[in-house]
Amino acid sequence: MDEFALIDAVVEALGDAARGAGVVLGPGDDCAIAHLPPDTELVSSIDALVCGVHFPGTAPGELVGRRALGVAVSDLAAMGATPLHAIVAVTLEDERQSWLIDFARGMGAAGRAMGIGVAGGNLARGPLNIAVSVHGFVPRGQALLRSGARPGDRVCVSGSIGAAGLALAQLGRAAPATERLLLARPGDADYPLARYWMPAPRLVLGISLRGVASAAIDVSDGLLADLGHLCRASGVGAHLDGSAIPLAPGAELAAAVQAGDDYELLFTVPAARLPALRELAADVVEIGTIVETQGIRLRVGDRDLEVRRAGYRHFS
Amino acid sequence: MDEFALIDAVVEALGDAARGAGVVLGPGDDCAIAHLPPDTELVSSIDALVCGVHFPGTAPGELVGRRALGVAVSDLAAMGATPLHAIVAVTLEDERQSWLIDFARGMGAAGRAMGIGVAGGNLARGPLNIAVSVHGFVPRGQALLRSGARPGDRVCVSGSIGAAGLALAQLGRAAPATERLLLARPGDADYPLARYWMPAPRLVLGISLRGVASAAIDVSDGLLADLGHLCRASGVGAHLDGSAIPLAPGAELAAAVQAGDDYELLFTVPAARLPALRELAADVVEIGTIVETQGIRLRVGDRDLEVRRAGYRHFS
Repeated sequence: MDEFALIDAVVEALGDAARGAGVVLGPGDDCAIAHLPPDTELVSSIDALVCGVHFPGTAPGELVGRRALGVAVSDLAAMGATPLHAIVAVTLEDERQSWLIDFARGMGAAGRAMGIGVAGGNLARGPLNIAVSVHGFVPRGQALLRSGARPGDRVCVSGSIGAAGLALAQLGRAAPATERLLLARPGDADYPLARYWMPAPRLVLGISLRGVASAAIDVSDGLLADLGHLCRASGVGAHLDGSAIPLAPGAELAAAVQAGDDYELLFTVPAARLPALRELAADVVEIGTIVETQGIRLRVGDRDLEVRRAGYRHFS
Repeated sequence: MDEFALIDAVVEALGDAARGAGVVLGPGDDCAIAHLPPDTELVSSIDALVCGVHFPGTAPGELVGRRALGVAVSDLAAMGATPLHAIVAVTLEDERQSWLIDFARGMGAAGRAMGIGVAGGNLARGPLNIAVSVHGFVPRGQALLRSGARPGDRVCVSGSIGAAGLALAQLGRAAPATERLLLARPGDADYPLARYWMPAPRLVLGISLRGVASAAIDVSDGLLADLGHLCRASGVGAHLDGSAIPLAPGAELAAAVQAGDDYELLFTVPAARLPALRELAADVVEIGTIVETQGIRLRVGDRDLEVRRAGYRHFS
């Protein structure tokens, strides 16, 4: 297939996920066109997944498509944004054309699950590389930033962490069928891989945290690293209680707090708004407190560990 | 430098181009935030430049940065959009860290020239690949689409074509200094390379064509290929007069109409609006007419050539 026939096949594989709510013009022109509700702001992020770095070359297209969109959309959740659309640039080798169709199917399925369409994209030939640019909106001035945490705020995290980290050791093996991963529940052998390949960005939680959280970030580099980003942006530090950190089945604290890819929300809440948080009845727990002194201390048993550096970093 | 120090250095190299008009929150959080004027629509596109495919590995970062942003912004010009911001994903090898700073400087310079800032991005390690996601806005319903051309409309093109095509043979050699390229004028030996490395998207022309042009596209794949895209989207054909096509100095018709990378605007205008077009006093010329019968005919001397396929395509 040439470039344009391949684009047509990709759009067909995306199905009704090619566009999205609010999208006025989908794939096929120089640009996509979308409509934002009045009195909102545009919220935008871009993420790349590189073959051999973020996923093995043998990974099925369907799973890479699901993961690529999920990872990118998680940044919208971290801002408390409502999803608008994604646009996607894929660079791939000639022999990956059918892989690309699987990729589009996976991305379409993830898009339907998250309520975000793919409104446009770009195809080029080269080493496999996927860049996903995602867009959403928030009522003006209500985005959740990293920089709003203040001393005394409680540190909270959603769901459980450490599951995706457990998956890393299994990525080299053949991936289970998508259907099996879709059914995996906490405690199942496939659960870590399901968390890794099918991130479920906390969009609803993010939206409900507008006006409640003082700062937020998603757990992508690792809980400690991401809390470090949030604290640096806010000019504060944090004390964490290791025994309060909600671990995924099979995860161990030391590894879990340094593993990335969980895509839960990590956020801070002023004490006065804790009742409002509890009313949300979400699966969130308090794991620590923001303090004035920069740096992060993690209490494990009767020891305070000072955390200097943690999480995955590119380059070094 | 690790990932986060490198990001800081990139943002510093971008200087005041890191953000852009309308940007409420620039680099440093999970997402960028921007404000669209009331009664406008969001216009978005993504483009990728792959090392070894779109530019040689020896190309200076400064020029790749200028080209990457220019190529992407040209899609906004083709829609008649006012630029808002760009977000950029760069995948690169460890040893390219100083190249990346040059790249950011070039992108910043191009952004200042075009009036678009870089409001966010992503860095990852891997084979050099650059994805640029650009965003702008148009008054609601006024975007220039590919699909509005009707039989009888005149086909017009801006500036001159074929210069960037002449540069392709020279890309393997060491590039001239940026300062020399910035000064190159039509007819100079460096002019083709200047056109290739420093695309100047026709943003002002695109904006002025709102309400005048019935359809528009930018010349990226080649004049014939891009006219083919426009005609297919509109369900029409076109007759072109080869002698009217404005060639860059040194360019020959047959090669020029198939070469891409000129980033001029190719558009159609209903006869009734030709006076409005001429009042724009822009450097545009009429090169043909839209017809009902699909396909493109190019009149060269006393022969009519039927054009079946032209322009650069990935995959085949």
